[in-house]
Amino acid sequence: MTTVAILGATGYTAVELIKILLRHPHAEITALTSREDTRPVCQVHPSLTGKIDLPLESLTPQAIAQRAKCVFCCLPHTASAKVVPEILKNGTKVIDLGADYRLNSAEVFETWYGEKHPDSARLGKVPYGIPELYREKIVHADLVANPGCYPTSVILPLVPLLQADWIEPADIIIDSKSGVSGAGRQPRLNTLYPECNESISAYGIGTHRHLPEMEQILSERSGKAVQVIFTPHLTPMDRGILSVIYAKPAKPTGQEALLSVLRDYYRDEPFVQVVEHLPATKDVSGTNYCHITVRVSGGRVIVLSVIDNLLKGASGVAVQNFNLMFGYAETTALGGQSIS
Amino acid sequence: MTTVAILGATGYTAVELIKILLRHPHAEITALTSREDTRPVCQVHPSLTGKIDLPLESLTPQAIAQRAKCVFCCLPHTASAKVVPEILKNGTKVIDLGADYRLNSAEVFETWYGEKHPDSARLGKVPYGIPELYREKIVHADLVANPGCYPTSVILPLVPLLQADWIEPADIIIDSKSGVSGAGRQPRLNTLYPECNESISAYGIGTHRHLPEMEQILSERSGKAVQVIFTPHLTPMDRGILSVIYAKPAKPTGQEALLSVLRDYYRDEPFVQVVEHLPATKDVSGTNYCHITVRVSGGRVIVLSVIDNLLKGASGVAVQNFNLMFGYAETTALGGQSIS
Amino acid sequence: MTTVAILGATGYTAVELIKILLRHPHAEITALTSREDTRPVCQVHPSLTGKIDLPLESLTPQAIAQRAKCVFCCLPHTASAKVVPEILKNGTKVIDLGADYRLNSAEVFETWYGEKHPDSARLGKVPYGIPELYREKIVHADLVANPGCYPTSVILPLVPLLQADWIEPADIIIDSKSGVSGAGRQPRLNTLYPECNESISAYGIGTHRHLPEMEQILSERSGKAVQVIFTPHLTPMDRGILSVIYAKPAKPTGQEALLSVLRDYYRDEPFVQVVEHLPATKDVSGTNYCHITVRVSGGRVIVLSVIDNLLKGASGVAVQNFNLMFGYAETTALGGQSIS
Amino acid sequence: MTTVAILGATGYTAVELIKILLRHPHAEITALTSREDTRPVCQVHPSLTGKIDLPLESLTPQAIAQRAKCVFCCLPHTASAKVVPEILKNGTKVIDLGADYRLNSAEVFETWYGEKHPDSARLGKVPYGIPELYREKIVHADLVANPGCYPTSVILPLVPLLQADWIEPADIIIDSKSGVSGAGRQPRLNTLYPECNESISAYGIGTHRHLPEMEQILSERSGKAVQVIFTPHLTPMDRGILSVIYAKPAKPTGQEALLSVLRDYYRDEPFVQVVEHLPATKDVSGTNYCHITVRVSGGRVIVLSVIDNLLKGASGVAVQNFNLMFGYAETTALGGQSIS
Repeated sequence: MTTVAILGATGYTAVELIKILLRHPHAEITALTSREDTRPVCQVHPSLTGKIDLPLESLTPQAIAQRAKCVFCCLPHTASAKVVPEILKNGTKVIDLGADYRLNSAEVFETWYGEKHPDSARLGKVPYGIPELYREKIVHADLVANPGCYPTSVILPLVPLLQADWIEPADIIIDSKSGVSGAGRQPRLNTLYPECNESISAYGIGTHRHLPEMEQILSERSGKAVQVIFTPHLTPMDRGILSVIYAKPAKPTGQEALLSVLRDYYRDEPFVQVVEHLPATKDVSGTNYCHITVRVSGGRVIVLSVIDNLLKGASGVAVQNFNLMFGYAETTALGGQSIS
Repeated sequence: MTTVAILGATGYTAVELIKILLRHPHAEITALTSREDTRPVCQVHPSLTGKIDLPLESLTPQAIAQRAKCVFCCLPHTASAKVVPEILKNGTKVIDLGADYRLNSAEVFETWYGEKHPDSARLGKVPYGIPELYREKIVHADLVANPGCYPTSVILPLVPLLQADWIEPADIIIDSKSGVSGAGRQPRLNTLYPECNESISAYGIGTHRHLPEMEQILSERSGKAVQVIFTPHLTPMDRGILSVIYAKPAKPTGQEALLSVLRDYYRDEPFVQVVEHLPATKDVSGTNYCHITVRVSGGRVIVLSVIDNLLKGASGVAVQNFNLMFGYAETTALGGQSIS
Repeated sequence: MTTVAILGATGYTAVELIKILLRHPHAEITALTSREDTRPVCQVHPSLTGKIDLPLESLTPQAIAQRAKCVFCCLPHTASAKVVPEILKNGTKVIDLGADYRLNSAEVFETWYGEKHPDSARLGKVPYGIPELYREKIVHADLVANPGCYPTSVILPLVPLLQADWIEPADIIIDSKSGVSGAGRQPRLNTLYPECNESISAYGIGTHRHLPEMEQILSERSGKAVQVIFTPHLTPMDRGILSVIYAKPAKPTGQEALLSVLRDYYRDEPFVQVVEHLPATKDVSGTNYCHITVRVSGGRVIVLSVIDNLLKGASGVAVQNFNLMFGYAETTALGGQSIS
Repeated sequence: MTTVAILGATGYTAVELIKILLRHPHAEITALTSREDTRPVCQVHPSLTGKIDLPLESLTPQAIAQRAKCVFCCLPHTASAKVVPEILKNGTKVIDLGADYRLNSAEVFETWYGEKHPDSARLGKVPYGIPELYREKIVHADLVANPGCYPTSVILPLVPLLQADWIEPADIIIDSKSGVSGAGRQPRLNTLYPECNESISAYGIGTHRHLPEMEQILSERSGKAVQVIFTPHLTPMDRGILSVIYAKPAKPTGQEALLSVLRDYYRDEPFVQVVEHLPATKDVSGTNYCHITVRVSGGRVIVLSVIDNLLKGASGVAVQNFNLMFGYAETTALGGQSIS
């Protein structure tokens, strides 16, 4: 049994994490923190009623480390990096669901996040938490940088094609559509129901913070300088990401050849499925799965992937990383075959 | 041509009002106010792009009265009653879309709204702005209390049945479902997209401020002490109210007899339609119409009505009242037959 | 390990059932049937991709009984009762998710379903599958009539109050709101996306087939002749039922007293939670839970309950019954605490 | 006053057309046809209750031409081209909302629609009904080919940039998102509410019939051989299209320069607005407007446009064409400034 704490337990990723961990046979939730809210967690998340009895607490890093052998950080950027060092020092492992340890460079971090990194010495040494790509490093890590939701939907389908030189590393166009839960649980005008419902819109073209994260990992895994254009969209649904990626073929190819590359790459992966049909976000809603397919049209390779932004894009993969870090079967509590 | 101003122009009722008034051949919008926002109104409401060029302004009641012969107040409760007296004094007419002038009694107001009424001397003298019931008074009024959205959906179908003694005035159960725009445009957790979407819930049982408003008007129009039980619901849609009302028959009756009563009552009303089928809120979405039907089942009369909460429940009827107060054809800008 | 078959595997309840059974440690799916479709089930339900490899088959009752020790019937009315006798004869147990074995009387069945019952001799002897009320009978049954979704949401909160004489058995008004998945997966105009979205409407007032089912069970459990008025609604969401029930108090009472009655009744039930707040359908979405609360207002007791219509209202409780019938822990595969 | 008929009046474009025409001061609807349905149109479209009293009828082309001086065809492909010649022969003008007269070549038609064109002699002589591009031809036409919804959202923003050589005519990638009403009102599994809701998916990559239409008009207007890649999406909303278009700059440029080109081109157009912000489909919902903006990012020009697929994408522009063909002010019944 591993004791676990969740820092920043009021949001959407936290409640998903709690639900998965509650059915994990080897995890015991011992602390849930919030800087402002001290109500029982069931009052903050009524869907937890009857399932868990803990209050939200404001705890020091030391107190947290005493309570839990693993900490999931669901904190705003720079907030994680301010408490993680102290927690690690006390021998507790950390899975950071925020962005603080994803980028390798303090300069790039500062450029995109507008703040100095509070723990820059660690940058570049923290495994990026996509198990399908960094399993070995994750197994031995004390700290894992859980990936961004959009990057997961982009990196999983692109890495096999880039590594085997099927597509060009430049002029990759990514058009991603996300459910509104991806924008968090802070009340804001642009995520109010009557603003989002019955409407779709693009945002943050060229300025979204997941862009450098994608380029870093795609470049690192392919050994090429990958450059992407990235257009995220707010879509009128709770959850789900569909990424449609337009790439240039690096050599003559067709749909079947590309599907084969992807199938070979992910043959033994329980959570990545290469499909023939065009997938819908609903196909993976409530699961830790990623469905991928590919088309060739008009001289472009068009890669499509779907994930649940809160699960494979956040809390599901976080537990997948937890399982690896603590020696449990990788699919535990993630449904064997299904968590939905 | 009548000059008009809208006070509190940042919300959902205001933007609907602007759209209707822009196609009104005899209205000219000359001022839009906000206490905090001074951007062009098109930046606050992008759907107005290319249609109107005014900025939001913070104006005194005197300045407003100088600019406009009619003022539509879309202000929070008590805010209207603080500026309306001064506006009226300057000879400008007012349609108050808020709750300040709906109740006849300052005591009742204080009980339900928790504040002293700032202009209590006027209470009881302001016509309640349902034209189908108070047309004559509205025609001659300088100030009209535009009705609440839920009350409109309840009062229109019940008054004919109560007046003709077809249903009992007590034990009337009202189960109403409203779209989320009814909760306003202030960012709040409970109206955030991921909180409302894929979910329906009741709220404010026995405590909603539209309850005394319904009882007052129903009692006044029927000459009986009407008592209601009222359960409003937040429904995952932008707009629309469906009210399902369970009443006791006061004498033996059937569906056809009751439909006849309603048809006779509203025969000449352009915006009230008595239908045989069970209406959906979508049938009246984007219009100033109210569709009504009735069923008899299990010893109860079940009355159903649908309106668009932002139009027949707010801004549509406000322009209907404007037309009456200024001598224009009542349906002007409300679509002749349709505004959708 | 128990082998299980699902008859009628193309619909929404079937796919939920498959997902639950796939994570059940003691169930093995060995057959999925359809009369018309013989594709792999993953093509019919893309969300099962990578999780199960069976095709749909058209099988005789004998063939089904040879393949499985338990059969879940997701068939249209009268279709179940035509195959169930033969399956039972072969020693296989059956959980019928349809309506064929819920009513005790062949006459009542014929009145409401418009067809002669094909297996009327069994009526009145089949336990009604609400474990919280009929657990002992279910444990020993070969055939269980899984309850209707609306009835579950109504019976669970009302039985304790009726049994202890807190509410009157007559003049019970039930206003229920259901997600669209409750209408099934057959393409029809009224459940087309653009017809349902942004709209709520009532249907089947006084004629819905769940009405006699509610009255039968409520009467049976309370020993009183219970009569209800029932108004179901189509709500713009995938899943969830909110029932708001207006009952007359049988003696002076208040909210706290009634909550106590409910809490006492369901104290040891894992899946029924009595809450203080007004529940939203989202609180139980994706789970086998029912949340209940109560208010007293305007001389009425107002009882509110929420369930997921496809889980506690269909496939979740079906597995709960399966667990009881085969001696597994009742919450197995239903999440310990959660299945979402 | 011009008498008008609508052929194929049971669908979503027809009901929008009826609503616009009902408030048109110079149009009188005299016939509504359907091959199968003969109910009053209000029963088919309950939102028309109280607004129009016509039945659906099955009429010959001659009978239609006798009743109306203008016919709007909302028929499936090839159905229009079978009746249009006869209607035109009788001196009645036609606006075809279907695809029959959009393509210039009978061969291309047969390739994409799989059927021989029934009136191929007319192909290439019928003006394409985008008034902003073909106003003069439309004014003098007896028959107009109303444009497809996706093409309108793509052609309006691209033509000015292609004509002035700001973007390359090849390698144009179009990622479009449409509401579900675009798929029509025929009950089908893939547009059932529980299939579409809470889900987004791509479809018809490289095979959508609007692709050759876009390429033809873009090539014709720019004098270059334009080639596009087109990915349409089914988005969980009733109406609206957002097209995000990735093009290669033909010369060094920036956002302001491109916005200027667009602003200059559409300066006098009432229904095309060039905006600075990223537009949402909701901004134009219920209107005949198109909002356009542009970004430069990662070496690509990214053009974004939004329309209401049923209005500017179908019935709104159809009435705009009607106004031109019959000499009425172009914005009549389209809202002066607004029709919402």
